[in-house]
Amino acid sequence: MGTLSDRVALITGDTASDLATASDGKFGPAPLDVLDHWDEVRGWAAENTEVLAEHARPFDEAQLGAPVPLPRQVFAIGLNYRDHAAEADMATPESDPLVFTKFPTSVAGPYASVELPSANVDFEAELVVVIGARAHRVSRADGWQYVAGLTVGQDISERVVQFRGPTPQFNLGKSYPGFSPIGPVLVTPDEFADRDDVELGCSLAGQRMQQGHTRNLIFTIPALIESISAIVPLLPGDLIFTGTPAGIGWARDPKVLLRPGQELRTYAEGIGEIRTTFTASDNN
Amino acid sequence: MGTLSDRVALITGDTASDLATASDGKFGPAPLDVLDHWDEVRGWAAENTEVLAEHARPFDEAQLGAPVPLPRQVFAIGLNYRDHAAEADMATPESDPLVFTKFPTSVAGPYASVELPSANVDFEAELVVVIGARAHRVSRADGWQYVAGLTVGQDISERVVQFRGPTPQFNLGKSYPGFSPIGPVLVTPDEFADRDDVELGCSLAGQRMQQGHTRNLIFTIPALIESISAIVPLLPGDLIFTGTPAGIGWARDPKVLLRPGQELRTYAEGIGEIRTTFTASDNN
Repeated sequence: MGTLSDRVALITGDTASDLATASDGKFGPAPLDVLDHWDEVRGWAAENTEVLAEHARPFDEAQLGAPVPLPRQVFAIGLNYRDHAAEADMATPESDPLVFTKFPTSVAGPYASVELPSANVDFEAELVVVIGARAHRVSRADGWQYVAGLTVGQDISERVVQFRGPTPQFNLGKSYPGFSPIGPVLVTPDEFADRDDVELGCSLAGQRMQQGHTRNLIFTIPALIESISAIVPLLPGDLIFTGTPAGIGWARDPKVLLRPGQELRTYAEGIGEIRTTFTASDNN
Repeated sequence: MGTLSDRVALITGDTASDLATASDGKFGPAPLDVLDHWDEVRGWAAENTEVLAEHARPFDEAQLGAPVPLPRQVFAIGLNYRDHAAEADMATPESDPLVFTKFPTSVAGPYASVELPSANVDFEAELVVVIGARAHRVSRADGWQYVAGLTVGQDISERVVQFRGPTPQFNLGKSYPGFSPIGPVLVTPDEFADRDDVELGCSLAGQRMQQGHTRNLIFTIPALIESISAIVPLLPGDLIFTGTPAGIGWARDPKVLLRPGQELRTYAEGIGEIRTTFTASDNN
């Protein structure tokens, strides 16, 4: 699933079928409306492969937007890979995940140009879960049932703002406009060779920076859904940024931080790649 | 402004005028749709006082819901009164406010019944700002222009969850269902004797617990709008919980925490009172 001009398209190979058109207005076109009826959409799509094929059109990948442009809730997990917790010199959460938010206005599409507010902005390649049904007090055994699909994301982070104050709250430093690029498409869990072990990583200006596998998550995707939904009901379209593996720029010596003009490429196996470019601040 | 059955009503004394009906479908009925056009709504209402009077009906206050039932973004401020920072034994933020989120699903109406997930749940009376226009990089001199109105709120907090983990992130412990009751109505800033000095407080089971004045805010409402909007664009309907004065239960000796069957009454001068009752957990 992807979005073209904020309309949901079902994507097969290099063609896209506009869902609202193909379903004669039954579903969509807005992503949240589609995700609010995700089970029905999936059922309809399975029964209407010929109709979808009739509506399939070649499309320009560059026109893809965020699969969910303005989610209702965004959860992001800190220190969810041991190698990253070690490089960040922080204790690993053992009994409960560390959960912060990236405010919804920070979401951007897969080929976004993002303004750098300072020279202290870092990258974090992440696999992102998109919720497909309301989930409250769900057990980890049932967790995958509430997942519409997976997408690639970056948890871009202004490190000074993230860690400022007497009791640092990570949210704001991770929520500048464009700091949560996602895409290029949402891939349903059944399409992965192993939905519990997806390779992901990123490169900056052509240099490989991060590479990891979600089999090394401390809190797995179903465990995160159990843990968060024990407190907060998850809604369709909600995002969970699942955490980043080792290799961030802030932990390197010397530090590697984002500079205007650079391109950051972030990928996950079975989904694809997002490409984020950076510009200088208008403000400085 | 209030909501009755999730429809916006303009309230004068003890009557309410359904906005969508009175405006012949021009505005509303949904709160976010109304707040997305707040300046127009205010202009229309000022020019159509007779139409609104014709549609004025007595209403049952108990039917009022949250002025914004599912906001797009919720910002909440920690340690924003010196007397509360002192009782919490935490350093006062000096240059930047401490900002966390209360996830939108935690919002409830003014007369909500809220389930207590544990015996560690505390109260925090707060004045809550409702944003009335998109605000990005706004100066504090212009801050009030982006405020639709003020309402009463409670930042209900599960203290153990709030402070758990190696790097406590406050969000989850403050986001159980019903932990963000707001209401009973939104009052526009011009209706206050002094919009920069509003008395607020709360009582639990008939005992006065908190009383404060927003003139003692460390970061004033316009300062919060300047500070947050420097990073995150504020959207119409977004909420800012502005912080709580001294008197919370967790800082008392012995601690005073919420118990099933108790009623918490929270008020702000010029707005009114919300009444929250508590029930035992279904889960225990």
